[in-house]
This record gives sequence, C-alpha cells and structure tokens, in this order.
Amino acid sequence: MNTAPSSRTQVKRGASKASYDPALLHAIVDAAYVCHIAFADPHGAHCIPTACWRSGDHLYIHGSNGSRMLQCLTENECCVTITHLDGLVLARSAFNHSMNYRSAMVYGRFEIVGEPAKRQALADFMEHIAPGRQGEVRAGNDREFAATTVLRIALLEAAIKVRTGPPDDDEEDMHIAAWAGVLPLAEARGTPVPDAQCTVAPPAYVKNWATS
Amino acid sequence: MNTAPSSRTQVKRGASKASYDPALLHAIVDAAYVCHIAFADPHGAHCIPTACWRSGDHLYIHGSNGSRMLQCLTENECCVTITHLDGLVLARSAFNHSMNYRSAMVYGRFEIVGEPAKRQALADFMEHIAPGRQGEVRAGNDREFAATTVLRIALLEAAIKVRTGPPDDDEEDMHIAAWAGVLPLAEARGTPVPDAQCTVAPPAYVKNWATS
Repeated sequence: MNTAPSSRTQVKRGASKASYDPALLHAIVDAAYVCHIAFADPHGAHCIPTACWRSGDHLYIHGSNGSRMLQCLTENECCVTITHLDGLVLARSAFNHSMNYRSAMVYGRFEIVGEPAKRQALADFMEHIAPGRQGEVRAGNDREFAATTVLRIALLEAAIKVRTGPPDDDEEDMHIAAWAGVLPLAEARGTPVPDAQCTVAPPAYVKNWATS
Repeated sequence: MNTAPSSRTQVKRGASKASYDPALLHAIVDAAYVCHIAFADPHGAHCIPTACWRSGDHLYIHGSNGSRMLQCLTENECCVTITHLDGLVLARSAFNHSMNYRSAMVYGRFEIVGEPAKRQALADFMEHIAPGRQGEVRAGNDREFAATTVLRIALLEAAIKVRTGPPDDDEEDMHIAAWAGVLPLAEARGTPVPDAQCTVAPPAYVKNWATS
C-alpha cells in the first residue's frame, strides 16, 4: 500500500504524509469536479484546469475536438493533480504554520476513448455531476458526440499526500500564548439558482443539493 | 483591458470568457490559499499544489531550501494556475452542461526573494492567512528563515477565464421539461478546532472565521 509505483511518484519531501493507496486515491478523485493538468509543448509548461470524473481505474476528461490541450495530451506524458484544501493550521510559531489537505498526482499519458465507450463515459460524467439527471435532459445527438473528445488516464502511477490534524509545534513553543488549532475549509454547496425561464419543479438532487 | 499580454496568454477557446484585467487577476489570487504550478524537468511535466499569496504585482510561494520544485522554478519557465469553482451549470441538454468558475493562469519565471524582503514576504503570508496574528506567535528565528526559500513571479503575463450565470441552452431545447439552473459551490469556513492543549481564548480572526 505504501510503496511508490515509480520513481517519479516517490514522495521525498514530507514522506510521512505520502500514500499510494488506491482506495484513498479513488476517494480524492471522486470528491473532485475539477483537476489541474500539467503538460509541456514547444511553448513551455501549461497548467490547465478541467472537469474530471472517475470510472474504475481511470480518470476521464473531455473537451472540444479542437482543443489544443486534448491534442497535446494524447501525444505527451502529463501530470494530473487534484487538491482538496481542508484547513489552515495555526501553530504557536510562525514557522510551524501549515495547511490540511488531500492531494493526488497522477502521471502518465491520456488515451482517446472511442465509440461506444465515449457515450458511456459522458453518461458517467452526468451521473457524477447530478445523479439521476441522465433521463431528464435531451441526450447528446450524433453531431454533439462527434464534436466531443473524451480522454482517460490510468490511475496507476499516482502519489497521494494528506495532512490532517492539529498543529505540530516544537516542544519549546508550547508555552506561547497564541491560539493554536485548525481553521477548517471545505467545498460547500449553496442554494440552487433556477434559470429565469425554468418552470420545472426541482428534482431530488436539486432539492437536496445544499444539505447533502 | 482585454488584450492578451503575450501569444501564450491569448485565450482561443471560449474567448468570450477571457479577460486580462489586473484588478480581476488580483481578486482571483487574493481569494486563493493554494495555486497549482506546472513545470517541466527531465522527468517530464509536474503539477504541484502549493500555498500562495500576493503582494503588489507579484505572486509569492515558499518552501524548504531543499525543495526540488523551488530549485527547478528558478531555472525554468512555468505556469501558475488558480481556479475557483463556483457552481455546476445544469442545462436542458446534456451537451450544454457547464461549470461556473474564475481561473487565472500566470506565465513566467520565479525569482528568489532575498533578505530582508524575504522576512516581509513571510509576514505578508501570515497576514493573508490570519490578519493580526503576526504579533501573537513566536516569530521566525534566523535558522528558520535561513531554511526557507521564498520565490515570487510577476503577475504580468496572465490570462483569466470566468464563467458566470445561468445555462446557455439552444433555443430548440427550451421546451424540455428538465430543471435548469446553477448548483452553487464555494469554499466555506467551518467552526475552528482548537488544539487539545490550547488554553488561549480565540482572537477575533478565529471567533469570526466561520461567519466572515
């Protein structure tokens, strides 16, 4: 569980926070709507945010056929990173301040998802965004599917780093009269905003959005 | 305001969502605690999340002197990206689903912040994390400052993309009986968690954390 799958996923700094557990990796991916992808082209390195979802042992992304990023990703190795910031960690010394987080870095190369798997993948994406919505909306037509590229990358070469818990103060700083602890942060769901022309009653996944 | 500062910051896809407004760029950076940095070394491209803050026209990061990333960043061009996800946009067709977001991509090269500017930069970081806390904690000592590298990158070569508002449905889909609108997402602050050994009353920035 705690052996890096490759040399470039071997965490060296803060190695005690490292993990290579597939179940934890899946949980970090499933909690995300967006990942950041680093890749290099002749203009240099780029870091692009894009929507993502998981099915089995792969992370999926999609975009327009004309996307330069998607084109580049099938031709080059890349690094996909997902980060959840869970809190600011306030220690008794300035130096020992930290953050709580869960992050995953996935290395490899994306591959094109062909038909008919592409349609299933986009259905999985909808399930990730709004479970049960699939049957309510107009499904994609052939023109729309043809204009969309879906890529996937194996979740095999990955490194996870997680920090949780209270500040880690030096023993000699414990007497300092500063408040110490964690200021939590989390992605929160707000009250749904219906479209001005929407006359349809909210389904369960909308009604329960802000409380689930 | 809406002219790209360089060819690599010229947004081509979804150009109507693009901006190059410095005030908007500053607001997106100031709302973030973490950025993602893409850079390439002989092992390929990497996407690493790290804490960030702004002072004037620069974005700052810090880390241990031993950090391979910091070493690499002073020697290579990179791309720093900040993304705030503001909501899931549910349209009447599967194809027109989208997300609301504010993102900024900054290109350039980091430079080392030397003494004494380094100490001021780290003080600025503390102000970003917890305004007013600076005078309460044990300040960094010479050993700690010496072990810490601070880098900064100019916020000059940057591209912003922002999507806001309701779904953008095709006219011929407006009759479809699917709920349409936005499911909002935001970074939320939770109730502070004091360290088990903390006996100090919470200062204002802790007491007001979850409500501010």
